[in-house]
Amino acid sequence: MVKDLITIDQLSIEDIKEIHSQAEGYFSANQTHEKRTSELSGKILVNFFFENSTRTRTSFEIAAKRLGADVVNIDISLSSLKKGESIIDTAKTINSMRPDFVAIRHNSSGVVAMLKQYIEASLINAGDGTNEHPTQALLDSFVIKKHVKNLKGDLGNLKIAICGDVLHSRVARSNIKLLKKFGSEIRVITPPTLITKGYRKWLKETWDIEVFESLEEGIRDADVIMMLRIQQERMLGCYIPSLGEYFKLYGLTHEKIKAAKPQVLVMHPGPINREVEISSALADDVNVSLILEQVEAGVAVRQAILKFLFG
Amino acid sequence: MVKDLITIDQLSIEDIKEIHSQAEGYFSANQTHEKRTSELSGKILVNFFFENSTRTRTSFEIAAKRLGADVVNIDISLSSLKKGESIIDTAKTINSMRPDFVAIRHNSSGVVAMLKQYIEASLINAGDGTNEHPTQALLDSFVIKKHVKNLKGDLGNLKIAICGDVLHSRVARSNIKLLKKFGSEIRVITPPTLITKGYRKWLKETWDIEVFESLEEGIRDADVIMMLRIQQERMLGCYIPSLGEYFKLYGLTHEKIKAAKPQVLVMHPGPINREVEISSALADDVNVSLILEQVEAGVAVRQAILKFLFG
Amino acid sequence: MVKDLITIDQLSIEDIKEIHSQAEGYFSANQTHEKRTSELSGKILVNFFFENSTRTRTSFEIAAKRLGADVVNIDISLSSLKKGESIIDTAKTINSMRPDFVAIRHNSSGVVAMLKQYIEASLINAGDGTNEHPTQALLDSFVIKKHVKNLKGDLGNLKIAICGDVLHSRVARSNIKLLKKFGSEIRVITPPTLITKGYRKWLKETWDIEVFESLEEGIRDADVIMMLRIQQERMLGCYIPSLGEYFKLYGLTHEKIKAAKPQVLVMHPGPINREVEISSALADDVNVSLILEQVEAGVAVRQAILKFLFG
Repeated sequence: MVKDLITIDQLSIEDIKEIHSQAEGYFSANQTHEKRTSELSGKILVNFFFENSTRTRTSFEIAAKRLGADVVNIDISLSSLKKGESIIDTAKTINSMRPDFVAIRHNSSGVVAMLKQYIEASLINAGDGTNEHPTQALLDSFVIKKHVKNLKGDLGNLKIAICGDVLHSRVARSNIKLLKKFGSEIRVITPPTLITKGYRKWLKETWDIEVFESLEEGIRDADVIMMLRIQQERMLGCYIPSLGEYFKLYGLTHEKIKAAKPQVLVMHPGPINREVEISSALADDVNVSLILEQVEAGVAVRQAILKFLFG
Repeated sequence: MVKDLITIDQLSIEDIKEIHSQAEGYFSANQTHEKRTSELSGKILVNFFFENSTRTRTSFEIAAKRLGADVVNIDISLSSLKKGESIIDTAKTINSMRPDFVAIRHNSSGVVAMLKQYIEASLINAGDGTNEHPTQALLDSFVIKKHVKNLKGDLGNLKIAICGDVLHSRVARSNIKLLKKFGSEIRVITPPTLITKGYRKWLKETWDIEVFESLEEGIRDADVIMMLRIQQERMLGCYIPSLGEYFKLYGLTHEKIKAAKPQVLVMHPGPINREVEISSALADDVNVSLILEQVEAGVAVRQAILKFLFG
Repeated sequence: MVKDLITIDQLSIEDIKEIHSQAEGYFSANQTHEKRTSELSGKILVNFFFENSTRTRTSFEIAAKRLGADVVNIDISLSSLKKGESIIDTAKTINSMRPDFVAIRHNSSGVVAMLKQYIEASLINAGDGTNEHPTQALLDSFVIKKHVKNLKGDLGNLKIAICGDVLHSRVARSNIKLLKKFGSEIRVITPPTLITKGYRKWLKETWDIEVFESLEEGIRDADVIMMLRIQQERMLGCYIPSLGEYFKLYGLTHEKIKAAKPQVLVMHPGPINREVEISSALADDVNVSLILEQVEAGVAVRQAILKFLFG
């Protein structure tokens, strides 16, 4: 039985299928008026966020409440950490209050795994540094499965291009781990200034993933294109000459996706930078863009994850 | 059936009476130990506040919880907007999580109406710029009706003076729209430096409202005086020479209200600036001041609004 | 019947025993899967915090939710106070919304007592300035009773040393008041620069408490040592030459506690400054340190307090 979700590595193919299958039910129910169950009634989820995030925090909160659980949000900018307490002591403090689930987001890679030994509740990695974001990969693959099912089969038979700042992307890392379990072909497209030799080697040797500098080449025949968010504040001037140039080379448009499969689907974990990673027209084209469905699926998949970890 | 509450314009006299009548029941129940129902059990209200507000956010939160709904607060200073996401994308993101109600407060006029097309949930304007604050007008009129009933009749038979920075007041605008539906006589009292020619014309031509420079003249024979909050941070030095002078000319006192009806009632949407808009003695005089009853009614009326929009 | 908890002075020995006895049940239940009851279902607790506190706010929130109540958090840095409203008006506003419980933390001593006249709900002091923190004293004494019971009896038969910045500590003040009701012997250990003549006199004349400058002398034969947090930001450079020197003289270690009873127990209200008030080794020694059990007991005792005040 799986108690925590720190990394995709912990999950078997069977686990992922079980989560996806459970999420299917929640996804449908969430489109009706009978959205709430009492499956986790009396349980408490602590949202322990060291980085701001409307999207992920709200998604966890709604997911838990839909299952009848209570939610306690801890906004860390207002917390004891300011008073000099170590994160380990803060984690032990929260643990002593005996919550049932703790979802942690933190800007340092590995923090969630490190805190596991101090948390008896089901611990969920809601994004740690540039390391992993396993709930995002579970929801992304849920959305892919849902849509590509109508096209030609299951998660193992696809060509998926991931484009952008892959090196720093926890979303990319978790998706690579998950999709590779099913045997899909993954390509990475990234500006050469944004990738290191070591990472390139890791992609090649561990995952058999080829890196493309050209967007058009990378997405050739792709079934799915996952765009990643550019951290403008961190990137600009250092690694990217200008947003305009980035958009010209790596921004996805209706024109450029012609190189991919005709039924290609476009994803983005959000929040999107319009006219930087993706044209507005493409982001809003519901025949191609799955961006909002990713958000919708996020709630259902997180419901399924809470249920799965609760056992 | 009314699904959203963006402006008072959407409501018929019958709608308003229905909301007031429902609120009557909640108002009474809230004074007992049996405050909570399960009428909206399983529903989710998202409080989406782009401006700080203890009063209004808490009022919506308590109203929803009294009806058994869950509440998700989104504090926008901590949100994706900081990461450069547009408000439309943020609204679409929230919408994709399928909440049942979304209450939005924003400092730009018209934003809530603009977002309507992106929100499938019942959308409630919790105050947009200098435009409208319809739930405040519904609660103000509820309080007037409750008290003036004992005096002489219904909302259509009153003289109501609104005093202060009417030009920038969404509270004033919504109250004017609502009270004029019932045919009450409204007067506006404002320093000449705080009103424009265009606004004066709009008051006169659209609403048949006369503007007074003198407080004593404006409140003559008034049944109700609504005081508005001075935005000190915005006003001082520009439009108002000093707070002391403002209080002398436009601050309401026991002495000045002698010009109004003997049973005159005084209202203020809060938070009040004591000794600026109103003397402390008058604000605290429970025989005249309805300020705290407005707060109390706020919860009951918002319960009624949620129920009304839910249908 | 006790409606509010502002100060330990309000509670009789019988009241404290009743709270402790009720907390015993919650403490046990919280270690099972059946943590939640519906004893306060439909009630609302407002957490009204003018000082940041992960620990205390979360503890109150979880306690209330475990009893089935709803919780509304008001983060005062986002509130009307910024708009110039007085705290009394803010309290009256909250009161008008008719919550069932209001927990207030504020950095000014006496504020909670002062607000009592404006709040009809059960008012709980969650820490006011350097004055009192009664829920902390109730949980500390609960933990002492739980552990010392196995040693030799009840709360009246103990030697308890309180060490650190006692003068500014609301935790110390509430604990002194509570433990003295039961007749325990209390000693205070504090650097001479951190205590005033008046406070020394108050300790001696009102409470028959001796003040020690030497840690080793003060803890001689102690059953319990309560360490207090050093407010580094406030203290350093003014009252304490360096943290290293403070640790050397007043930091508790395995070595130093040899002066106390062999089964001595160490407490700290948290958050701890490791290697300032206490060595890491001692803080983490579960045979001696009750620090995390204090946090765990905090939830159960606050459940008992809510229940007790609700009557």
